[in-house]
Amino acid sequence: MQQTIRGADSNHRIVLAARPQGLPSVQDFRLEQTALPAPADGQVLLRTLYLSLDPYMRGRISESPSYAPPLALGEVMVGGTVNRVVASRNPKFREGDLVLGNAGWQQYALSDGMDLMPIADTKHPSHALSLLGMPGFTAYHGLLKIGDPQPGETVVVASASGAVGSVVGQIAKLRGARVVGLAGGLDKCRYVVEELGFDACIDRHDPQFAQLLAEACTDGIDVYFENVGGAVFDAVLPLLNEHARVPVCGFIAHYNDLGLPSGPDRLPQLMSALVYKRIRMQGFIILDQYEEGFEPFRRDMGAWVADGRVKLREDIVYGLDNAPAALIGLLEGRNFGKVVVRVADE
Amino acid sequence: MQQTIRGADSNHRIVLAARPQGLPSVQDFRLEQTALPAPADGQVLLRTLYLSLDPYMRGRISESPSYAPPLALGEVMVGGTVNRVVASRNPKFREGDLVLGNAGWQQYALSDGMDLMPIADTKHPSHALSLLGMPGFTAYHGLLKIGDPQPGETVVVASASGAVGSVVGQIAKLRGARVVGLAGGLDKCRYVVEELGFDACIDRHDPQFAQLLAEACTDGIDVYFENVGGAVFDAVLPLLNEHARVPVCGFIAHYNDLGLPSGPDRLPQLMSALVYKRIRMQGFIILDQYEEGFEPFRRDMGAWVADGRVKLREDIVYGLDNAPAALIGLLEGRNFGKVVVRVADE
Repeated sequence: MQQTIRGADSNHRIVLAARPQGLPSVQDFRLEQTALPAPADGQVLLRTLYLSLDPYMRGRISESPSYAPPLALGEVMVGGTVNRVVASRNPKFREGDLVLGNAGWQQYALSDGMDLMPIADTKHPSHALSLLGMPGFTAYHGLLKIGDPQPGETVVVASASGAVGSVVGQIAKLRGARVVGLAGGLDKCRYVVEELGFDACIDRHDPQFAQLLAEACTDGIDVYFENVGGAVFDAVLPLLNEHARVPVCGFIAHYNDLGLPSGPDRLPQLMSALVYKRIRMQGFIILDQYEEGFEPFRRDMGAWVADGRVKLREDIVYGLDNAPAALIGLLEGRNFGKVVVRVADE
Repeated sequence: MQQTIRGADSNHRIVLAARPQGLPSVQDFRLEQTALPAPADGQVLLRTLYLSLDPYMRGRISESPSYAPPLALGEVMVGGTVNRVVASRNPKFREGDLVLGNAGWQQYALSDGMDLMPIADTKHPSHALSLLGMPGFTAYHGLLKIGDPQPGETVVVASASGAVGSVVGQIAKLRGARVVGLAGGLDKCRYVVEELGFDACIDRHDPQFAQLLAEACTDGIDVYFENVGGAVFDAVLPLLNEHARVPVCGFIAHYNDLGLPSGPDRLPQLMSALVYKRIRMQGFIILDQYEEGFEPFRRDMGAWVADGRVKLREDIVYGLDNAPAALIGLLEGRNFGKVVVRVADE
């Protein structure tokens, strides 16, 4: 059966063409055209409106150990999506429904409905991929459950203009903490302070970065939300206070590493600081937390977003074929805000 | 006033003579003879019977950042002691009392009594420096409060024949965990399994160490009690299970490092594992825990020691002047059990 879906008669999708060595290149991805799939009984056909691009994708296309098996060559790239149901043979969904899904990097996809969550047809459906979705939930859980900032404490947030960091800092402010962001470039820093309301933001490209950070954290650092790694952590470590908490949700600076980076070996220094400062570092993966934690998050964040207390800049890329270059840009820190690919208008 | 104390008319003490570079040498310490001090009103004069030697002492004689200011050159070396009160001008203490104190590396010391804890005149007064004192408390708190082993889980303990590791493993067994020790040499390994009841013990000097550890931990590692660092951690990291807990109480392998060791840099690998395995690493210093935790510890451990369920081998060194060489041996892992200096017989 070859349905005609508002003029579409084929599907474009992007698959993993080669396993990247270091930073991915656009040649590691391949655009394919296939027939429009037809829903079987119980299935729906989804059109992708928005595709979320996120740092974790680098891990999924690597062969290194991870929490999920690596994507095979030739497989469609994974990714969270906002979709319109364009044909339904599942009684729970009707044509026209808007859903949060996992269609990946393609224009159309089938689903049995198990992984779909209905979303309201608001002015900003893409918020389901950012503030009200995985990045927002990552920020909320990591900061509040692991970082546990207290009023007056100093919270430092890496990637402060990014999808997770923006939200971490705004929630920390709502909790009464002093918040210092780290971002790449003065434009981003200005945005983080002026638009998001952080107390300060340091440009991590500044040659005086470590010194500027120390000056911005005169009372030391109580919570460091780690989602970058690299040289940023070196500047943070000496400033951590006793009993500091370090939620670790990512280490984008090293996602493209080929093997272990050259020395010196910083592990003993970390161990030493962990002991004499009684530091708690804790890694987490937000997928673990949905069952228990997502509803409280959605309630809190929904209210904060509705009354404007938490917001996020979107960095919108138009067209599925621009997704590979946009992911590479994200891994290099060239994005400004949450990266979303606009795959179709409606 | 120069009292005659059972024939003694002078005090021998050991001071820090030079700040060690790397592994300390005996030349970094100096034996001094001074007049026997006389207690002022409110003070007691203490004779040292036992002096505890512990890895933390390396940190105290270093200039690196730590939880306590570094010992100054010329100062008496610090250390926990079991003392006899030989003269008292403090109504709370009588001549002949046995106390736990902090007299440091000397035969006699004065105290105002604030830092003294009466101990029973048992057959093993030195247990107050090991099983029933700081090392035992370190094991108890770190394992139970941070490691939190569950029945059937696998606990790996570094320095398994040492003062802390021995106790960690025995408590983990009492909690129903499977316990694998790591120790330096086959003699120690045999002792750990046959005398202390660990399920297995791996010789960390074995060229096949990492492979042997993997074979001993077929279900992975749920709790790793870290008090060594170095190559041991490299073998442990890949075996850690999801949601593993790593209490960090020391890193003796690096206490003598001069600056950062050469590469590769293992920090990014650790960060990666923290995230994808959701690991919690937490440093602690046992001094923080006395106020709340010591009484419950003493009650539990007192019972376990009394009925023989937890025991510890003592490595006794005779004579204060042998303390420097014994500390160096401890830092090199040449001790076998808890190192205690027998300073005086009575």
